[in-house]
Amino acid sequence: MSRATGSGWPEKNLIVALVRPEEAGNVGAVARAMKNMGISRLHLVSPCRFDTEAGLKMAHRSRDLLKRANIFESVDEAIAPAAEVIGFTVRRRRKGPIPTAFDRMAGEVLSRASEQPVALLFGPEGTGLTNDDLSKCQRVASITAGSRFPSLNLAQAVLAAAYTLRLAWKERRGRVGGTDRSLSSARELDALYRHLEETLVRIGFLREPSGKSLMRDLRRVFARSRLDSREVRILRGILRQIEWAMDVRRKT
Amino acid sequence: MSRATGSGWPEKNLIVALVRPEEAGNVGAVARAMKNMGISRLHLVSPCRFDTEAGLKMAHRSRDLLKRANIFESVDEAIAPAAEVIGFTVRRRRKGPIPTAFDRMAGEVLSRASEQPVALLFGPEGTGLTNDDLSKCQRVASITAGSRFPSLNLAQAVLAAAYTLRLAWKERRGRVGGTDRSLSSARELDALYRHLEETLVRIGFLREPSGKSLMRDLRRVFARSRLDSREVRILRGILRQIEWAMDVRRKT
Repeated sequence: MSRATGSGWPEKNLIVALVRPEEAGNVGAVARAMKNMGISRLHLVSPCRFDTEAGLKMAHRSRDLLKRANIFESVDEAIAPAAEVIGFTVRRRRKGPIPTAFDRMAGEVLSRASEQPVALLFGPEGTGLTNDDLSKCQRVASITAGSRFPSLNLAQAVLAAAYTLRLAWKERRGRVGGTDRSLSSARELDALYRHLEETLVRIGFLREPSGKSLMRDLRRVFARSRLDSREVRILRGILRQIEWAMDVRRKT
Repeated sequence: MSRATGSGWPEKNLIVALVRPEEAGNVGAVARAMKNMGISRLHLVSPCRFDTEAGLKMAHRSRDLLKRANIFESVDEAIAPAAEVIGFTVRRRRKGPIPTAFDRMAGEVLSRASEQPVALLFGPEGTGLTNDDLSKCQRVASITAGSRFPSLNLAQAVLAAAYTLRLAWKERRGRVGGTDRSLSSARELDALYRHLEETLVRIGFLREPSGKSLMRDLRRVFARSRLDSREVRILRGILRQIEWAMDVRRKT
């Protein structure tokens, strides 16, 4: 069991598993999509031949990933290393479980993958995962799409799933405070809100009885925006400038 | 100019434009990706032949969309109906603009598309958009990916972009949730930003040379916050009050 550190992308713990893929071009395109998004472990269950011209062409510069793919005879073997398996399906199957949008669970899946291997399981192009396959999954997911034609090509589905994890990871890093953007602290935000309130009272915008609820609305606007420290400094600079401008006017 | 109502998916105002696509299979896969995500307007600039076996196969059940594609001889013609054009590129080009992650701007793009046509512009497989193409775009975007191999296949890039808009739309619908919160329109936001800029110039906060970049930072703060119409009114009320307070001071 490999462990990914801190806020690092958990590449070692992410497995894409394809069950009986039928088209070499799709397997190649899956390899490229994985490499684009930083996933390297490809598990294949009874695949078609994929080292064909079409497969290698779609794999583009990720043939290394194709070559290192692990091949299994059963779904059970392919998902054996995973502490959690997410099965992808387009819509609810007869007697099957109801899928949840993958974007709703991506954060949790990522948390799991920071500690234990996780497998994303995709079925054959024509028929998708069977109910038997889905019964081996801890979660059943679908890719958010339009309602009229939600059935994605296999490689497109893998790309969308991996991309969703990337977005969740980026959001987390943004919140945790990665290298390029460090979120403002609670102290900085409190100081900003106090400063804002004082200025708004001073210009006569905040008055009872609506003052408290307006201030709550404004806090909400800035809370949703997830300000970084630099942005807090810019906003406080504006507040200071308002005060300065009023003082200048008063003196002239 | 078509207008999409309320919180509806703005299908009529979303255009995918491909510049000189080289592979029929990719054009077909783009059509399928668009149909998956509920986008139907495909504009092609000097494309390869795409009604080939490979193209039709990848298009799967979206051949109707391929057949209705509009074909143009120049980028200018292809983007002419669009009030806003977003050019996609992998990374900063020499002397080119710095791309912003598309997931950061998807909410704003969606707001714009609720009122006016918007075009997502993608370059040829081998070389991507030229600097000349990018100069015709109001925004330059990249698809969030891993850092080592971020160059997506053309159809994968289109899928990721369209999927990002779907996620933004879903988030908005979730937040708007029923009756009381209707997100601000692009027009309301534009008016807010103009008003903010005027006020900041007036109080002496915005000055060249840093004025433009500060204004961009402030737009980003409010864009992330996804303001509703009521919040825009509150913020503009504050701006009016600042002006009023300065006038009062001047007169006393």
